[in-house]
Amino acid sequence: MNEKQLVGEKAAEFVKDGMVVGLGTGSTVYYTLKKLGRLVKEGLSIQGIPTSVQTEKLAKEFGIPLANFGEIEQIDVAIDGADEVDPNLNLTKGGGGALLREKIIANAAKQFIVVADSSKLVEKLGTFLLPVEVVPFGFSMTERYIRELGCSLEIRLKEGKPFVTDNGNYIFDCNFPDIPYPETLERKLNSIPGVVENGLFVGMTDMLVTLDENKNVMTKSC
Amino acid sequence: MNEKQLVGEKAAEFVKDGMVVGLGTGSTVYYTLKKLGRLVKEGLSIQGIPTSVQTEKLAKEFGIPLANFGEIEQIDVAIDGADEVDPNLNLTKGGGGALLREKIIANAAKQFIVVADSSKLVEKLGTFLLPVEVVPFGFSMTERYIRELGCSLEIRLKEGKPFVTDNGNYIFDCNFPDIPYPETLERKLNSIPGVVENGLFVGMTDMLVTLDENKNVMTKSC
Repeated sequence: MNEKQLVGEKAAEFVKDGMVVGLGTGSTVYYTLKKLGRLVKEGLSIQGIPTSVQTEKLAKEFGIPLANFGEIEQIDVAIDGADEVDPNLNLTKGGGGALLREKIIANAAKQFIVVADSSKLVEKLGTFLLPVEVVPFGFSMTERYIRELGCSLEIRLKEGKPFVTDNGNYIFDCNFPDIPYPETLERKLNSIPGVVENGLFVGMTDMLVTLDENKNVMTKSC
Repeated sequence: MNEKQLVGEKAAEFVKDGMVVGLGTGSTVYYTLKKLGRLVKEGLSIQGIPTSVQTEKLAKEFGIPLANFGEIEQIDVAIDGADEVDPNLNLTKGGGGALLREKIIANAAKQFIVVADSSKLVEKLGTFLLPVEVVPFGFSMTERYIRELGCSLEIRLKEGKPFVTDNGNYIFDCNFPDIPYPETLERKLNSIPGVVENGLFVGMTDMLVTLDENKNVMTKSC
């Protein structure tokens, strides 16, 4: 069993009968979804809320019943991956472009569980490009303000044109030399008019599921 | 000449030849636009950037040349109205629903001039409903987090359905008893995943054009 499968399946154990479950996106959560599908077949009753079109498809394929987010007032647990996890369980996320929905659901969940193989654990955030979602209107102006925070950046492209998120926005992939103060950077980014969200998840993680140096599954809480 | 016309026309005097000008939206800026149109006919050379479809139409009607925002790196001056102006020149804006574009342009302008008749001047912000623009995805969850900041709120409707902004988002009209700390509230609102922008303009105004108690036009700077 590979690392992703080990941690992805472990996370499914924290889902209990009757729960509303935020379903993350990515190659590790894939195994959580698959496991949840098996548990549902065995009788587990849950309602899933997918963070992306991709996850919605997988959830349907695996037989996980989906809730209408508009009717849900509370998410019990959300499980998602990350691009980087620092020792305080702060994250960068959103390489895949689903960051806004992922963040809304993580924020709304009573418990937010992150699944990450050991390659994602870092001493300091910033090696991975940080995605920042912006409204298309005036995006070159918004770009200037983001750059002034100390990064180089490029607009994410698809077939030569700006990539458009599920919410109709653009993404700048920002290269910060490092991110020593993620909370400050997150606040500054969100204060720029035109910025919708960014890929920093600060103080949101309740539990990390990962592997120790002997490749045994372990959990870490804040 | 009514109050709106007096202050609206006065603001046009601060627009100089060669400038890129952010064009606000509303019944006072209307007179600024009309005056700018006359000045353009007399030889003034400017490029306008409208904050709304409504203003774009007016600018064309009045003969103000428009720039392509995508090609502009700097706005010299932006002129816009407000719903409320406090003694520190902080504003609430956005009754009309154009708040995001207005904020992007105000923020990008070297000088941001606010036009407001005396009815808009308040000791403390909060009498007017504060608009908060949110992404449609998960908006009932986002609503809960906004309410927890101490307001009652309603989603803005149009013909029985949620009103959709130029950017494809929804608006909550929020009734805060008062807003003693606009900077703090603005930061808290922008930190909620799902909130795109809000109608608080804190520390952005460079000059207010209004009327004194004798109904003479006056300017006030920060």
